[in-house]
Amino acid sequence: MAGLNVAVVGATGAVGQQMLKILEERSFPIKEIKLLASKRSAGVKINFMNRECTVEETVPDSFKGVDIALFSAGTEISKIFAPEAVKRGVVVIDNSNAFRMDPDVPLVVPEVNPHALHKHKGLISNPNCSTIQMVVALKPIHDCFKIKRVVVSTYQAVSGTGREAIKELTNQSKAILDEQEIKLSVYPHQIAFNTLPHIDVFDEEGYTREERKMMNETVKIMEDNSIKVTATTVRVPVFNAHSESINIQTAKKATVKEIKDLLSRAPGVKVVDDPANLLYPMPILANGKDEVLVGRIREDNSIENGINMWVVADNLRKGAALNAIQIAEYLLNNGLIKVR
Amino acid sequence: MAGLNVAVVGATGAVGQQMLKILEERSFPIKEIKLLASKRSAGVKINFMNRECTVEETVPDSFKGVDIALFSAGTEISKIFAPEAVKRGVVVIDNSNAFRMDPDVPLVVPEVNPHALHKHKGLISNPNCSTIQMVVALKPIHDCFKIKRVVVSTYQAVSGTGREAIKELTNQSKAILDEQEIKLSVYPHQIAFNTLPHIDVFDEEGYTREERKMMNETVKIMEDNSIKVTATTVRVPVFNAHSESINIQTAKKATVKEIKDLLSRAPGVKVVDDPANLLYPMPILANGKDEVLVGRIREDNSIENGINMWVVADNLRKGAALNAIQIAEYLLNNGLIKVR
Repeated sequence: MAGLNVAVVGATGAVGQQMLKILEERSFPIKEIKLLASKRSAGVKINFMNRECTVEETVPDSFKGVDIALFSAGTEISKIFAPEAVKRGVVVIDNSNAFRMDPDVPLVVPEVNPHALHKHKGLISNPNCSTIQMVVALKPIHDCFKIKRVVVSTYQAVSGTGREAIKELTNQSKAILDEQEIKLSVYPHQIAFNTLPHIDVFDEEGYTREERKMMNETVKIMEDNSIKVTATTVRVPVFNAHSESINIQTAKKATVKEIKDLLSRAPGVKVVDDPANLLYPMPILANGKDEVLVGRIREDNSIENGINMWVVADNLRKGAALNAIQIAEYLLNNGLIKVR
Repeated sequence: MAGLNVAVVGATGAVGQQMLKILEERSFPIKEIKLLASKRSAGVKINFMNRECTVEETVPDSFKGVDIALFSAGTEISKIFAPEAVKRGVVVIDNSNAFRMDPDVPLVVPEVNPHALHKHKGLISNPNCSTIQMVVALKPIHDCFKIKRVVVSTYQAVSGTGREAIKELTNQSKAILDEQEIKLSVYPHQIAFNTLPHIDVFDEEGYTREERKMMNETVKIMEDNSIKVTATTVRVPVFNAHSESINIQTAKKATVKEIKDLLSRAPGVKVVDDPANLLYPMPILANGKDEVLVGRIREDNSIENGINMWVVADNLRKGAALNAIQIAEYLLNNGLIKVR
């Protein structure tokens, strides 16, 4: 089988590990895989498709002969190495914040704006995790009823911060249950049994960068400047899967039944909305799943054409690794990537 | 010192215990205390003001000779015994949902609508925990800028459910960290390391009773039917102190500085809003405190005159026990209670 030469940059990280898992699960056509990471991780052995692979340090020439590179090693690494990869003819799908708002870089969720990939110039950005799951749920509603405004509050899992944060939640939780002192390392305050209204850095207006990502990326992905978004992003003591409380106002009246019917047919969405049987989206349900779970759909009578809903998804999968690989699949299936 | 005969109904519960603690802390003038609970708890010894007191089973005649009764034993107990107490000349401050929306029953947050107490007929309702902390923060803003609409999403601690829920979060957390099976008892799903968009029962429109409480009680306490409220209430794995992401729209333009100045002078509020120094409200800061902490105050440009803020308070204290005792103090200081 003809395959691609694929590089995974950040292969030892939380998202990198999910990328390898999903490439295997979906039998992505791979000729050769290259596992790249920092110098510190070089030499680490990782089993991929029943072969032991050795992690190499990322250097510009790592990308020679590579067809597609999936980056998830942080903004600084992307800024340095993504242009080097592109220079060497590689198509880069970058999971960092480095290029997302660059007008020359498509920012894509395949269920929402795959057409943007047709104009790619070698570099494609994968949106922010909390944005991806929101737009997957919003797009079908926008197409039918036109969304005017979104008010979103998030309940984000620590896996979004990375592997060290998962350890920190584990260790702090154990310490508190054992009545021991907790240690702070990844987060500036205790995350165990607490909420942190602080994800990424604060700007002059008091918003965090995570909030700005949700506000700005949503408009770019939905390709409609008329959609107004405000966000409050909060870290909660959950290991994996982000939850979002989303309030929307539409231009045209939508009933709960119409929204449910619409979302039941929407790609990438699973409606989980049967309160009488105690069924609603939760992190423990979304963990490990591909779909964005949507529930608690109800009319909001505090405004004309208001709707409330509750959206939960696996932030490492649909929020990062899966979305990136879906982009790669689209490129491949539509002849948008040159196989050497 | 002349004092009152006080009964605490539900004295062994999470809120009952806080009531006793706060009565001591504030040196509430007590002649005699009567600790009441279910038959199951009768005989339990509780230390109060350096005296050992014995918990008695609640029966109608428990209220003979009592001046004021603080109820926090659930809606069913209040429905049975609050009228019996009132019949015996007792002023009842009821922490349950039983009578809150009754037009003859004042629903009071002393910082917001103490005047409503002047018309009491023996029965006074203490509002829902998540409502109390929200209206304490909203009232000064409403008075100055007139609030048109509120969109609130909550992050509620398990202590609001009671002592058994605190044990459940502890036990489930331990089990998960030890890779053991978890047990479900209080909540229908795992609460440890999860979010539950489900507090109290669901109605036909898909709202929970907790959401309805926030929507209905806010309007009654603020005494303004023009305020529109929509709520999404969510349980999170936090032991104590509720967090709320609140989006408001005002009729008159308010700047962040104006809101901060206003709230800095407001009774019962503490502004904790210095992101540059990583200061914002969190459950671990609010736990054990009397004040409602308000931070992350910022303009929301997705709408005209929009404001976002993050409000955290100790739901057992200001959200329940403290508010009830502040009502008792107001009654006493304003001659609204007949001391025998």
